[in-house]
Amino acid sequence: MNTPKRPTLADATRGRILFGGDYNPEQWPEETWHEDVRLMREAGVNSVTLGVFSWSTLEPQPGERNFAWLDTLMDLMHENGIGVVLATPTSAPPPWMGRLHPDTLPVTEDGRTEWWGGRQHFSHSSATYRRYAAAITEDLAARYGGHPALTMWHINNEYCTFDHGDEAAAAFRRWLRERYGTLDALNSAWGTAFWSQRYDTWDGILPPRTPHYLKNPTQVLDFRRFTSDALLECYLAERDIVARHTPHIPVTTNFMPLWIGQDGWRWAREEDVVSVDLYPDPRDPLGAQQAALVQDLTRSQANGPWMLMEQAAGPVNWRGVNHPKPRGLNRLWSLQSVARGADAVCYFQWRQSRQGAEKFHSGMVSHAGERGRTFAEVKQIGAELPLIAEHLTPPQKADVALLHDWHSWWAGAQDARPSTEVDLPDVLRAWHRALWEEHLTTDFAHPEHDLSAYPLVVAPQLYLLTDAAIDNLLAYVRGGGTLVCGFFTGAADGDDRIRPGGMDARLRELFGIRTLHEWWPLDAGETVECEGFRGTLWSEEIEPEPGTECVPYKGGELDSLPAVLHRDRAWYVSTLPEPPALRALLGRVAAEAGVRPALDGLPDGVEAVRRGELLFLLNHGPDSVTVQVPAGHLDLLTGTSTENHLTLPRHGAAVLRP
Amino acid sequence: MNTPKRPTLADATRGRILFGGDYNPEQWPEETWHEDVRLMREAGVNSVTLGVFSWSTLEPQPGERNFAWLDTLMDLMHENGIGVVLATPTSAPPPWMGRLHPDTLPVTEDGRTEWWGGRQHFSHSSATYRRYAAAITEDLAARYGGHPALTMWHINNEYCTFDHGDEAAAAFRRWLRERYGTLDALNSAWGTAFWSQRYDTWDGILPPRTPHYLKNPTQVLDFRRFTSDALLECYLAERDIVARHTPHIPVTTNFMPLWIGQDGWRWAREEDVVSVDLYPDPRDPLGAQQAALVQDLTRSQANGPWMLMEQAAGPVNWRGVNHPKPRGLNRLWSLQSVARGADAVCYFQWRQSRQGAEKFHSGMVSHAGERGRTFAEVKQIGAELPLIAEHLTPPQKADVALLHDWHSWWAGAQDARPSTEVDLPDVLRAWHRALWEEHLTTDFAHPEHDLSAYPLVVAPQLYLLTDAAIDNLLAYVRGGGTLVCGFFTGAADGDDRIRPGGMDARLRELFGIRTLHEWWPLDAGETVECEGFRGTLWSEEIEPEPGTECVPYKGGELDSLPAVLHRDRAWYVSTLPEPPALRALLGRVAAEAGVRPALDGLPDGVEAVRRGELLFLLNHGPDSVTVQVPAGHLDLLTGTSTENHLTLPRHGAAVLRP
Amino acid sequence: MNTPKRPTLADATRGRILFGGDYNPEQWPEETWHEDVRLMREAGVNSVTLGVFSWSTLEPQPGERNFAWLDTLMDLMHENGIGVVLATPTSAPPPWMGRLHPDTLPVTEDGRTEWWGGRQHFSHSSATYRRYAAAITEDLAARYGGHPALTMWHINNEYCTFDHGDEAAAAFRRWLRERYGTLDALNSAWGTAFWSQRYDTWDGILPPRTPHYLKNPTQVLDFRRFTSDALLECYLAERDIVARHTPHIPVTTNFMPLWIGQDGWRWAREEDVVSVDLYPDPRDPLGAQQAALVQDLTRSQANGPWMLMEQAAGPVNWRGVNHPKPRGLNRLWSLQSVARGADAVCYFQWRQSRQGAEKFHSGMVSHAGERGRTFAEVKQIGAELPLIAEHLTPPQKADVALLHDWHSWWAGAQDARPSTEVDLPDVLRAWHRALWEEHLTTDFAHPEHDLSAYPLVVAPQLYLLTDAAIDNLLAYVRGGGTLVCGFFTGAADGDDRIRPGGMDARLRELFGIRTLHEWWPLDAGETVECEGFRGTLWSEEIEPEPGTECVPYKGGELDSLPAVLHRDRAWYVSTLPEPPALRALLGRVAAEAGVRPALDGLPDGVEAVRRGELLFLLNHGPDSVTVQVPAGHLDLLTGTSTENHLTLPRHGAAVLRP
Repeated sequence: MNTPKRPTLADATRGRILFGGDYNPEQWPEETWHEDVRLMREAGVNSVTLGVFSWSTLEPQPGERNFAWLDTLMDLMHENGIGVVLATPTSAPPPWMGRLHPDTLPVTEDGRTEWWGGRQHFSHSSATYRRYAAAITEDLAARYGGHPALTMWHINNEYCTFDHGDEAAAAFRRWLRERYGTLDALNSAWGTAFWSQRYDTWDGILPPRTPHYLKNPTQVLDFRRFTSDALLECYLAERDIVARHTPHIPVTTNFMPLWIGQDGWRWAREEDVVSVDLYPDPRDPLGAQQAALVQDLTRSQANGPWMLMEQAAGPVNWRGVNHPKPRGLNRLWSLQSVARGADAVCYFQWRQSRQGAEKFHSGMVSHAGERGRTFAEVKQIGAELPLIAEHLTPPQKADVALLHDWHSWWAGAQDARPSTEVDLPDVLRAWHRALWEEHLTTDFAHPEHDLSAYPLVVAPQLYLLTDAAIDNLLAYVRGGGTLVCGFFTGAADGDDRIRPGGMDARLRELFGIRTLHEWWPLDAGETVECEGFRGTLWSEEIEPEPGTECVPYKGGELDSLPAVLHRDRAWYVSTLPEPPALRALLGRVAAEAGVRPALDGLPDGVEAVRRGELLFLLNHGPDSVTVQVPAGHLDLLTGTSTENHLTLPRHGAAVLRP
Repeated sequence: MNTPKRPTLADATRGRILFGGDYNPEQWPEETWHEDVRLMREAGVNSVTLGVFSWSTLEPQPGERNFAWLDTLMDLMHENGIGVVLATPTSAPPPWMGRLHPDTLPVTEDGRTEWWGGRQHFSHSSATYRRYAAAITEDLAARYGGHPALTMWHINNEYCTFDHGDEAAAAFRRWLRERYGTLDALNSAWGTAFWSQRYDTWDGILPPRTPHYLKNPTQVLDFRRFTSDALLECYLAERDIVARHTPHIPVTTNFMPLWIGQDGWRWAREEDVVSVDLYPDPRDPLGAQQAALVQDLTRSQANGPWMLMEQAAGPVNWRGVNHPKPRGLNRLWSLQSVARGADAVCYFQWRQSRQGAEKFHSGMVSHAGERGRTFAEVKQIGAELPLIAEHLTPPQKADVALLHDWHSWWAGAQDARPSTEVDLPDVLRAWHRALWEEHLTTDFAHPEHDLSAYPLVVAPQLYLLTDAAIDNLLAYVRGGGTLVCGFFTGAADGDDRIRPGGMDARLRELFGIRTLHEWWPLDAGETVECEGFRGTLWSEEIEPEPGTECVPYKGGELDSLPAVLHRDRAWYVSTLPEPPALRALLGRVAAEAGVRPALDGLPDGVEAVRRGELLFLLNHGPDSVTVQVPAGHLDLLTGTSTENHLTLPRHGAAVLRP
Repeated sequence: MNTPKRPTLADATRGRILFGGDYNPEQWPEETWHEDVRLMREAGVNSVTLGVFSWSTLEPQPGERNFAWLDTLMDLMHENGIGVVLATPTSAPPPWMGRLHPDTLPVTEDGRTEWWGGRQHFSHSSATYRRYAAAITEDLAARYGGHPALTMWHINNEYCTFDHGDEAAAAFRRWLRERYGTLDALNSAWGTAFWSQRYDTWDGILPPRTPHYLKNPTQVLDFRRFTSDALLECYLAERDIVARHTPHIPVTTNFMPLWIGQDGWRWAREEDVVSVDLYPDPRDPLGAQQAALVQDLTRSQANGPWMLMEQAAGPVNWRGVNHPKPRGLNRLWSLQSVARGADAVCYFQWRQSRQGAEKFHSGMVSHAGERGRTFAEVKQIGAELPLIAEHLTPPQKADVALLHDWHSWWAGAQDARPSTEVDLPDVLRAWHRALWEEHLTTDFAHPEHDLSAYPLVVAPQLYLLTDAAIDNLLAYVRGGGTLVCGFFTGAADGDDRIRPGGMDARLRELFGIRTLHEWWPLDAGETVECEGFRGTLWSEEIEPEPGTECVPYKGGELDSLPAVLHRDRAWYVSTLPEPPALRALLGRVAAEAGVRPALDGLPDGVEAVRRGELLFLLNHGPDSVTVQVPAGHLDLLTGTSTENHLTLPRHGAAVLRP
């Protein structure tokens, strides 16, 4: 991806909101394709993703090519005005690959082979796999690069495989050699002097295969880094092929939401379009907030509009109990994505499968067919999106940045840590929820990003912080920014080496911490009393510097020691306050930093988001509510003007334009 | 098993009820054998099963034969009037087999070998294993076929092994080739167009070894079918050998109760005697009902009298906590088996082992010996059974048929389904319980069986229904039958292909369902309000045809939609009503269908079963109860005549004869 | 270990209490070593353990030696008056060993290799491993045997590995051959006549690798015996090398507390110093009692003073949630160890690691460094121990012996037993707790030890008892001793063969049991009513001999049958009474046996222990308490004389001297 400017999502949307989904017509006879097109047109579908799992159809035998069916479909889509996001099929190799080339199969940390018969049974480090993947990508790009239906490339699908086999071990060693240069540097970074782990040769290094007792945590951290990079190499190899054929067509690969396996900041840089798959549980009372978190993260990765590549029109199939979406929820959550920056609202998948492992995952056309409630609601969404699209502008930057770094997550998730009750995604969700409930739209940022434009920066937990990140945070506060950090932040350096004092000395000074004596994690369900609120999950035994402003713990082992400390605009919160308290704290700090909610006076459960001049109002609560709104706005969905209030039914939404 | 008429259980019972158990004398010195015989005679034992785990004694080295000890025991039994059910020892190969022939060891889906050191460590598909098994069977049949003690052959023991190894893979491919003929047919049945699973050669097909993500559900279904058939081949090979030697001696193999691994209808066809092992938990308040279910199923498989091959006189050893049977319970449950069709009441095992993995599993003679309570109760049962035997006739057909099909069970148990909270045995037990509490004796039937003789047919859940089965059910209702179907019935065809509309169209029409929008599974412990009762586990979003009679859901997402629908005599129940409601519903429908309980006016906890002219009354409740009974009957157990009521103590029973 | 008298712990302590810990200086630059020494002196450290995990530093390539750094450290310690416990590094082989010699890696029962990358990845049976281990031990002993800093040898670390691989299988066979002599003897001991497990050749025997169903329990028992012995061989080989070089230096290896893997009685015989690692959970309300149990056991194994090799100054890292020690707790538990016989109070580790798998395990110098609370408390302990040391005498024998036998534990822990809710350590803890709460100091003893000196012997559960052990117990009671046995005792012989009647006949006679009909284990959380108390976990259906004194069960299946039986001084308790009842029972029996508490009139939560003339008072309760004490004693910690009462703050302690 060098000099020539790459295309963007706008090159695919061209003023519309993309609407459609994964389409796997190989499952159906050709007459169904025509039925599909009729229903797509009825539903306003303008984009389908073809070919995600088509490898064994495209290449039934090694080296053969079977493109006829795809030619037909590309033409059919084009004739009907439906653009095609064309996928490379490389996430699911055909059975012959594992049979002829067992070296393409991944191996778990326990030494178990992952056999074909499911999907994603490919070793990212297998030269054989990569060769076959490049060949089919090359041929797809050559054949369809000029097809008028083509609007975007979709590389692979939800990259997520680990491999502990021998070829991956060799690749891991090459990666380490590149990172460290010398064995001494590696031995130092991994702390191999402990437990007699000093490596005398690169060949002695393994992926972290299951040992007798605990693994070396930096070995695990580097293996996660390597895995993200090895998968990225697979992506880049395919991307470069299609980009060479079609420099004008944007390229994406779809992330899973807040997934641990890929360094999302690093990957997003290599995508023309950042896309994500999003499946909140319809039963989760915080489903909307968790969706908002992923939408905010994805928008921040994209630094602009993004693509909702997959959502479910109804139930999924992979939970223990898979709940359908009640009437209106599909529409509500679709509009939420647009509010938070999506310019594409797509589904897995168009027509629900009758066979295979995902036949209980819903489709835009469910088993009930065009008569079903699911399709009826899809049609409504398809009809409404164009009403919004013509007024849509790129999403603006928020006033608050939430810091997140995959490397810190990886390091913090090590096995033998102070508390396995602490799970970073839960902590992120708790802090994001507090902001969301305060109607404070939030960007995500990496701790080394330029933060100067944000009045408020919140770091829920950055266990690992590089020196550069610390410099950046200090400069941010020095520059007038307000910083709020959660517990267990700044504990380790970039190699997961605990910093002297248990927290970086400059951060301690920033917050007014003289000595951090011990981390006091709490048991599951335990709380700790603080002045005015209760903390959960964690507490810390801190001796403050004189003059630091403190909210103390009350009673218990930490009685009168500070729970929350701040010096000027730098705050440290050494526990996880219960939701109302964290919300109140962030609300107060935000107000002091001059950050205002999207709309004042909103009842709980109603989400307000501004995108350009549009104001989205989304009712996630269980009941109909009446909201005070600015008068003289037009609701794009109903075409009616607002008085100074608006009634939103359950799952109701309005998109107001001045 | 072709033309000549096969012998039956009656050839072994000859008017008696068989009473005895597994006898493993190899564990004991010869003097104990004589002690055993003395106690057997004292207890009225007339049948023992020899040789189940004797392979390493019979064939201490490959090809050697050591029959002397068995000669002695066969003679000893005969001299004492005790018949012998002689087992082939093939469920537990000697250690030398695994050592010399590692190809005989099964491999799990994770690639782990199942080593010797336990039992059942044989690969059903191993040619080596089958050769050794045939040889020892041949020699046993040749040597003992003419022995006067021999009354029955017992092939293997509790067939239950899976194998994912290479020889099993080859056998699976042969089986698939026979089933499908062409790869195209297989690819269509398995829906391999999805997830790029299309097979280009038979050699590419594996058993469902653990993949990266979900398995192909039809591959799993066919592997279950194959496994049942592969085990059946093992059985048939041995059966054919003994049948050739002794055409007059009946053959059995013992099932585990309601076990998922064998297609019980298919297997039962190949047995002269259907036998089962039955181990309800003495602490389970529904233990008696669950036993009744297995007894009903086994009787239906046998289409007549059957054999209780194994039960426990006291505790078992394989539960977490193994409770003994309180005084009287062994007798009560033994009589229950007879009431529901058993002509043989046997135990695992005669004398409790002192060593090995089952030494905490009780015996008829417990560790406490002849002085123990356990043996005292065994003697009582042994004395009472003959009092019943002389009046016993074959069990009659019931008025209610409960439908069950292993293939539907297999398909419905796939991994990524709407709800993993739904477990077919639990659903079967819930429906059987409702009938049992209403004192409605129930047969089991396959959905393709001739059902015309039953006034009432109940299908708790038949997720998969072949076209033939649907035709059969429709014909049954057309012919005047009453059909009640539980939720998630008729969803898939014989290849586990979801039928358009989510339920077969003819069934929808039968029940008055216009559109089945979505399945709404419930969370664990969640209930859904319906008019007059609460549902559990599941609900459905159904739009009825006009004129369908409906009991609606109340409140929640499905408010006012139908929970129960019926059109004339065809009922559909889209949730699992709580026990009293399901009981009431079935009681009402049964009454309308003209089906009467075995006895009216019974208190809860008392079971009444008719077998021929005998009326069995069994008190499963915690207290003594008084029951209204027909006057002028004789209680065979006490020899007293009944007035119009009878008092049954806790665990008490009566067998009334007019 | 033959004729010449071996040195003892006294040779290392020389009148002091050893104070210090594991020191892993390889992790730190040399300047930190000098900082360490300064702080050690400040804290009164007089002993460090070097080299535990230093193999890859000492032998960076196969056969190389790198001793320079250790030379420096040995000299540095000596110059500062700090003794060195020098470890052989053999618990953590360098990465090159697994790479060059895969035969040195252990294999689990599931066939999984335990890779390097953690620690303890050595096969005890690998000839290659043993050869390398002997060589480095030889060279360490030769180089440092004469160093003046050397005070003790520490062999390996927490031996705990199992191996099911092929070389271990061969070693297991050799071990079995030695134990049994003939295959017939083995077949008899293992009961291989059951389940067709008769071995026809030694080569057919495997370690208990995972089978299809249950393992042979005596095979498992013997594999545990073999594993303990194989690890002991590793220990002895290294011990013999160092003992040859330095006959005057005592040798130890550190046990894990109440660990199942090593036969503690057998191992302790081969140690000059018995040492243990002890990590109670600071949050466990019974932490102090569980520590006391391990201390009592270790003292009994040592038959005199012992060494606390490892404890934590703060949190550990391997629990789910790792709680720090509140202020004072480290001191309190350190003093408790001395009270119960420790002459050495040491920690893992001196300075908390910054890297690797144990960086969240505390050190004497925590991440907070010398400014931290943790180090401040370490200094206090270091200052106080010398005040006690000068008055310390070897611990005396207690009046009560608690019986414990690893072989019985191993046998009782088999898979398919009456109740998996019964866990021997829990049962031991319950009985020890009752004695501890009564302030009755308790020794541990093996059931074949000479018990005649104890007025009271308590056997919480000895499922397996050899004939010799039974003879010993009977002789003990005949000799006037009082014996209290808990449930499920005496059930099996030394081969895990159930004794006729379910309990040895002589024991039944001793307790007045005519017939033991059945064991009635209880469900988790279930209780059984008895006259005056409630039982948990277990009950038994017992018919007593006439004249036996009984406390009956009340209600339920066992109503009026005996729960507790005794004849004269022989007691049998067939359930586990709830804590207050067990405490009352043992208190009464102890009083009748003439056994007195360490001090009368103590409030709950205060522990009193006598060591020689010293009386230790330890407040484990949550609050400050006032204790009645003998007047005219001197508190060694404060230097003040006692009146007739003493106030102990939370976590407070006093050491009184007349």
